[in-house]
Amino acid sequence: MDFFYEFASTYSYIAAMRIAPIAEAAGLTVRWRPFLLGPIFKAQGWDTSPFNLYPAKGRYMVRDCEREAAANGLTFRLPEPFPQNTLLAARVAVGGLEDGWGEEFSRALYRAQFAEGRQVGDPQVIGEIVDALGQNGAAALVRAGSDDIKQKLRANTEEAQRLGIFGAPSFIADGELFWGNDRLEQALARARET
Amino acid sequence: MDFFYEFASTYSYIAAMRIAPIAEAAGLTVRWRPFLLGPIFKAQGWDTSPFNLYPAKGRYMVRDCEREAAANGLTFRLPEPFPQNTLLAARVAVGGLEDGWGEEFSRALYRAQFAEGRQVGDPQVIGEIVDALGQNGAAALVRAGSDDIKQKLRANTEEAQRLGIFGAPSFIADGELFWGNDRLEQALARARET
Repeated sequence: MDFFYEFASTYSYIAAMRIAPIAEAAGLTVRWRPFLLGPIFKAQGWDTSPFNLYPAKGRYMVRDCEREAAANGLTFRLPEPFPQNTLLAARVAVGGLEDGWGEEFSRALYRAQFAEGRQVGDPQVIGEIVDALGQNGAAALVRAGSDDIKQKLRANTEEAQRLGIFGAPSFIADGELFWGNDRLEQALARARET
Repeated sequence: MDFFYEFASTYSYIAAMRIAPIAEAAGLTVRWRPFLLGPIFKAQGWDTSPFNLYPAKGRYMVRDCEREAAANGLTFRLPEPFPQNTLLAARVAVGGLEDGWGEEFSRALYRAQFAEGRQVGDPQVIGEIVDALGQNGAAALVRAGSDDIKQKLRANTEEAQRLGIFGAPSFIADGELFWGNDRLEQALARARET
């Protein structure tokens, strides 16, 4: 199953913290696919998160994420500003996934952002998070600037768009799109059937 | 618990077909509150359903509603055109709820629209649906045009807006807003606690 996530996405945070043990219990392998919602939102005329564009929806999202996080033993707070710039973090994740520490980095980045309220657009913060995993933060940041990594992240975003993805998290199981943290279990069930 | 529903809303259909037995099993009374999303959407700059404004989201919604409907033993099809004009149906529901047949009417109206693909903006179709419940369709249509009923529907929509409602279905339990068919169980659980 493919797990498309955007670091700025609040519900992707909850899904990212939930997915590994559930997938493992189901005997499924999950392919982590960081991507950017920015270009997809821009294509439909949005220049920021819909939670900023539609304040009633934004206020509800915070309340709902607090409830959903609490139900999963997680803390939730909205970072300031919201959304954070997640381009660099996504590129670091692409490199980390190739080197085997990308999932752990993704969870750590989410925790820093949505539990601790850190500035995860800041290269220094990202480097510290990588270092804390026992990896080389400085090297990861350099690699994140390479054409190879930039192109791979762009490819993820283009594939997401081709697959009809319009939000995050999104799961692709057996060619079917499932959108939202609420659909994680259904996506896994579908992947298990096939 | 209050159940705010809009007849044109696909996920309100599924929630409306599910809510009565679940609430009864939980020993809870549900107050059915038909309202109009149109004025709320207009206030945020939309002149039609977000599922039309954002086609990728619209395509996904159809697929997701088919899956959710099937999981609940229901049929789902998108009516043509979508959304239907639901002003008259909502007014008839307000009258029917006062007379004790509004819930049954609401379910029948939803079934006609989303299972049978009927034109539920058509007064004749609405009248037939009321007649089929053993009530007086012609009288219900006349009453739907009264200032009293118009005002009561307007009051529901205004209250929805005041409560921070931005979509349907929405549930209010213990003053907390829960949005979406996916949150029905959580809303009932919250209502049960209080």
